[in-house]
Amino acid sequence: MEFASDNTAGADEAILAALAEANDGRVKSYGYDPWTKRAEEALGRVFEREVSAFLVLTGTAANALALSSIVPSYGAVMCHDEAHLHTDECGAPELFSGGAKLMPLAGMGGKISAARVARTLDNLARGEHESKPAAVSITQLTELGTAYSLAEIGALGDVCKARNLKLHMDGSRFANALVHMGCTAADMTWRAGVDVMSFGATKNGALALEAVIFFDPSLAEDFRYRRKRAGQLLSKSRYLGAQMLAYLKDGLWLRNGERSNAMARLLAEKLAEINGVRLPLATQGNQVFAIMPKRLHDAMLKGGAHYYAWPARASSVEGIGEEECLARFVTSYRTTKEEVAALTRLGLRLAGN
Amino acid sequence: MEFASDNTAGADEAILAALAEANDGRVKSYGYDPWTKRAEEALGRVFEREVSAFLVLTGTAANALALSSIVPSYGAVMCHDEAHLHTDECGAPELFSGGAKLMPLAGMGGKISAARVARTLDNLARGEHESKPAAVSITQLTELGTAYSLAEIGALGDVCKARNLKLHMDGSRFANALVHMGCTAADMTWRAGVDVMSFGATKNGALALEAVIFFDPSLAEDFRYRRKRAGQLLSKSRYLGAQMLAYLKDGLWLRNGERSNAMARLLAEKLAEINGVRLPLATQGNQVFAIMPKRLHDAMLKGGAHYYAWPARASSVEGIGEEECLARFVTSYRTTKEEVAALTRLGLRLAGN
Amino acid sequence: MEFASDNTAGADEAILAALAEANDGRVKSYGYDPWTKRAEEALGRVFEREVSAFLVLTGTAANALALSSIVPSYGAVMCHDEAHLHTDECGAPELFSGGAKLMPLAGMGGKISAARVARTLDNLARGEHESKPAAVSITQLTELGTAYSLAEIGALGDVCKARNLKLHMDGSRFANALVHMGCTAADMTWRAGVDVMSFGATKNGALALEAVIFFDPSLAEDFRYRRKRAGQLLSKSRYLGAQMLAYLKDGLWLRNGERSNAMARLLAEKLAEINGVRLPLATQGNQVFAIMPKRLHDAMLKGGAHYYAWPARASSVEGIGEEECLARFVTSYRTTKEEVAALTRLGLRLAGN
Amino acid sequence: MEFASDNTAGADEAILAALAEANDGRVKSYGYDPWTKRAEEALGRVFEREVSAFLVLTGTAANALALSSIVPSYGAVMCHDEAHLHTDECGAPELFSGGAKLMPLAGMGGKISAARVARTLDNLARGEHESKPAAVSITQLTELGTAYSLAEIGALGDVCKARNLKLHMDGSRFANALVHMGCTAADMTWRAGVDVMSFGATKNGALALEAVIFFDPSLAEDFRYRRKRAGQLLSKSRYLGAQMLAYLKDGLWLRNGERSNAMARLLAEKLAEINGVRLPLATQGNQVFAIMPKRLHDAMLKGGAHYYAWPARASSVEGIGEEECLARFVTSYRTTKEEVAALTRLGLRLAGN
Repeated sequence: MEFASDNTAGADEAILAALAEANDGRVKSYGYDPWTKRAEEALGRVFEREVSAFLVLTGTAANALALSSIVPSYGAVMCHDEAHLHTDECGAPELFSGGAKLMPLAGMGGKISAARVARTLDNLARGEHESKPAAVSITQLTELGTAYSLAEIGALGDVCKARNLKLHMDGSRFANALVHMGCTAADMTWRAGVDVMSFGATKNGALALEAVIFFDPSLAEDFRYRRKRAGQLLSKSRYLGAQMLAYLKDGLWLRNGERSNAMARLLAEKLAEINGVRLPLATQGNQVFAIMPKRLHDAMLKGGAHYYAWPARASSVEGIGEEECLARFVTSYRTTKEEVAALTRLGLRLAGN
Repeated sequence: MEFASDNTAGADEAILAALAEANDGRVKSYGYDPWTKRAEEALGRVFEREVSAFLVLTGTAANALALSSIVPSYGAVMCHDEAHLHTDECGAPELFSGGAKLMPLAGMGGKISAARVARTLDNLARGEHESKPAAVSITQLTELGTAYSLAEIGALGDVCKARNLKLHMDGSRFANALVHMGCTAADMTWRAGVDVMSFGATKNGALALEAVIFFDPSLAEDFRYRRKRAGQLLSKSRYLGAQMLAYLKDGLWLRNGERSNAMARLLAEKLAEINGVRLPLATQGNQVFAIMPKRLHDAMLKGGAHYYAWPARASSVEGIGEEECLARFVTSYRTTKEEVAALTRLGLRLAGN
Repeated sequence: MEFASDNTAGADEAILAALAEANDGRVKSYGYDPWTKRAEEALGRVFEREVSAFLVLTGTAANALALSSIVPSYGAVMCHDEAHLHTDECGAPELFSGGAKLMPLAGMGGKISAARVARTLDNLARGEHESKPAAVSITQLTELGTAYSLAEIGALGDVCKARNLKLHMDGSRFANALVHMGCTAADMTWRAGVDVMSFGATKNGALALEAVIFFDPSLAEDFRYRRKRAGQLLSKSRYLGAQMLAYLKDGLWLRNGERSNAMARLLAEKLAEINGVRLPLATQGNQVFAIMPKRLHDAMLKGGAHYYAWPARASSVEGIGEEECLARFVTSYRTTKEEVAALTRLGLRLAGN
Repeated sequence: MEFASDNTAGADEAILAALAEANDGRVKSYGYDPWTKRAEEALGRVFEREVSAFLVLTGTAANALALSSIVPSYGAVMCHDEAHLHTDECGAPELFSGGAKLMPLAGMGGKISAARVARTLDNLARGEHESKPAAVSITQLTELGTAYSLAEIGALGDVCKARNLKLHMDGSRFANALVHMGCTAADMTWRAGVDVMSFGATKNGALALEAVIFFDPSLAEDFRYRRKRAGQLLSKSRYLGAQMLAYLKDGLWLRNGERSNAMARLLAEKLAEINGVRLPLATQGNQVFAIMPKRLHDAMLKGGAHYYAWPARASSVEGIGEEECLARFVTSYRTTKEEVAALTRLGLRLAGN
């Protein structure tokens, strides 16, 4: 009954096999091997345009490096107050940007709105006494399991363009959002105004693989320096390239995304049947959030369920009672129907359904 | 005829197999999986003491993070003027330390001496107008293929202790140095005064694996924060733990080190027979440096040999003539006798032996 | 009718005269002149103990440097969400600390409570995924013109001690708070648990002078390096020492503080008589906050009054109506009764009293 | 007999008087007062063009902030290995640039040559593995008391332009160099290819005043943020503006520069007459360097002379014997003929002339 994270599953067999296939022979190191080259090209095909793509090792590095390319050290990045890069990356964006400031904004369901961004900018009127707003970062799929609509992303893109800010997308669960939306990767990113993104693969089947993708190549000019200096340029880079090729091959990434989404939908349906449990947010990817009695929560953990209560700092969910908590359940591409059934059976029993 | 780097070879089959073995099941992420735990313990056994060991993804990150733990932002690190962390890491130590200064020292054969360090410290007498000396970093095996003797390391350790500096060792080719020295890992590090080291595995058979090892646990207190913030905490950390366990198992790392060293010794012997070629440095690991006529060098590259001329900034080698260059040949654990033979045959022929 | 800031007034004549007196002769530079030495000692007498005091040039530098001494680059500082160092220093704390994070807390009247700090710490439970809480910073006098009581400071000091955090006080209006409190400088700082403070003089009569004062000398060990590296070590340091000596001499600083406080009390009394104006906060220093109709506010600015509306981001004041705004009036040691009378006359007339 | 530094003298009476004159009335703070405005315009007249000028408080801040505007965090700055910003600013350029690297070059007489810069760039051929060269910084007057000729500056400007680097001039003794050269300020800077400079006034008669001057306004776009964030934006900025206006008024700065230069020339002439003393460098400003017997040096210090031996790290002077040292004598605008006479009398007596 493992629903704590999509990081607790191992790697997809196809990706593991790709490492073995790439293992033979001597090839150039530090990003100049043939696998990496082909992976960069494959990402271009995913986004239906030439992109500047850079493979890195972790999502924290991808986010922090991407932001460092679009925000000066005296700049500020607007993001949701529950954004992973604000709450879970131990100040990595501050490190890689040379001390830029994150400016957290409230917003229901893990989303910030174009209107909120515009209003915040209007209230910053004291020039150099405040950090200079330089970028907006959104997470798609959001940390609250919801997906920004194309219209929402487009509105943020428009505000950014109008105010001379850059728009970053943290796509650590990009595949989950994309299959939910049913649109193209291009529509969900650069066509809506996204300038640079973190393209995640680790949570969805890779061992250790993320990509920073620039849709405006001029922003990527010196990114090779940034990646190297951050300790994110792998000497035996073939292993990153090979992972990415396998991840994208024949739509493996989309199939894996759909698999975990399907399990989340099933889980959401079942959780809603448990006495005292209600779902405050739409399940639009592979995360399910449930408001439940604290007593039930404690009992479920004791009963062997593995998942986390979501921190109280949330601006995303209202109406959680004193005796209640917000629980987060994450499915992965390896989650089975049996696991979902076992969890919900436990819940139903403990809640006295 | 690949002698450009030990990074151009793939991974050891045993290490690749370990990834597959670790792939099943759900385990805790972010460093709390069983493989990582066991790998940390295994490193303690290698060094015959309790250590604080942290697995990271690249050598640049290992060095920069290790230094950031022992050098304040206003501090200085003394190192050889050809030290990898000074010349090849694009300012990573400066980034992770918050702007500390590297203070390069000259020294024959890639080594800095305790006497040189002491003299440099004596000449720094203007207090806060200069960066505060806080650490010395040495590379073992050095960038010039030589190995510090235990007495040399011990003398540096003594100076550091006496002057209140910390001693760091960049061990990206630690195994090669160790098998050459024929001593224990403990003797070559903490018993000689090393406080923290970068323990390299990638060049010697892993896919992507280094460890930062603190022999004084008090220095490691907050290292978890540093690693996370640097984007070096792998979510699916089992794959780092599994690599390390396989690397250390039954002495694989030492066998691989000895294999590449043996090929380097063979290569050195053969290169010395080529007309116009001389070896200015002892071959004490898996790198061979040769002074050779530029014409021969050019001809060899054209003839299909793959290796690099070493930059002219070197303070390590004297007596290179106007028409000569310094060439570096690196062997790996996968280098074969046939490759060595092919290279030297080419050289002999071109030099008109 | 200048009530925009206490920075718009010039310097006290006595302090200006001190510059001239210090002008003769050759003396050591960079902090080793006799004036600086004596100023550091004089600050010790103010606080009734040996202190480590460092003169610097601006309040932003004082705050940022003080914090950089007690917060690691991966650390976090809790402060009020309207704290000057969070909202008005353009990321200086982030710069000097190497990227630490400010963690703004809400609190009425510009104050954060010990309970709020404790609760926030309790909610941070994810170890290295979050920035490490390392310090609390409070402003005395607060940005909202209120003063922390000794009990409130003491409670914060206790939480900090219990949780292994340091307590910083931004005292850019320290004199105003101190004369309001009627206690000793020692009581308001180290006896209540403050570890380091920014001691402001510029707003209260100096030209350019602040001091960073450590009550725990072990925290100050390397501060000389930090000050120099920040460009805050004045070569002709005598001019800082001379300013401070004159500032402290015969209680000039306390007299100036009382003078501006008295004008603020008078202003508060008069403003409260204006139709539609109410004072949501106690006037405990040299700042008066008034809720007033936007129409009146606009009319007063047009009428020649010079002061600012306080930004809407405030968590400090509740109950501001749609058609109202929060106005801040600051008095300085040079503010006269006539100026107060002129301003309030204008207000009364425009409000139709 | 004070020849240790030009920082040991006080301020020019005219500049002190200007502070008093600026003291009355309430004016806008943070750089928007009339004195600052007029000072910025006056600097434009000095350089015969529109400039973007920013007043700051110390030379270290001026240099570090100027460089931070033209060098990315992953960049490198080439400078002389005795450049003040490399050896005497405790890593301030590294701090303000976010960790950029200084790349010290050797050069006789405190100067680096265009040829040396070009050669160094040619040798940097490994892309992102090395910090990206982004700027060259020269000091005029150099730390060794020599002045770059217009041809030398122009050649450096040409190399910078051709290689896409920016050229910075540290002008902490700009006036001394300028009066020696007898050219215009425009000729010595932007007409020769200088992009940004630190314009020093403190050493030459101000209390605490430097300016960062951009000749290419596009480089200055966000400099206000950088200055504020560095704690270098003075709230009562009128005192910086007033100093600068007085400094420039009626050529005070040039007269002061010439006065100290004249004393240096006199001193050089006299020192050369002392037995065993020789001057290895041309005296082209207000610093005199003398090679002298260590015994004489020690005796002179004991005899009451105050000046410093210059550190041995120098690449600027050759041929210093084992029993000799290099001594630096600095004159200021307040140095008198009597002081020069007293010093040389002492030297002559002790040397047994």
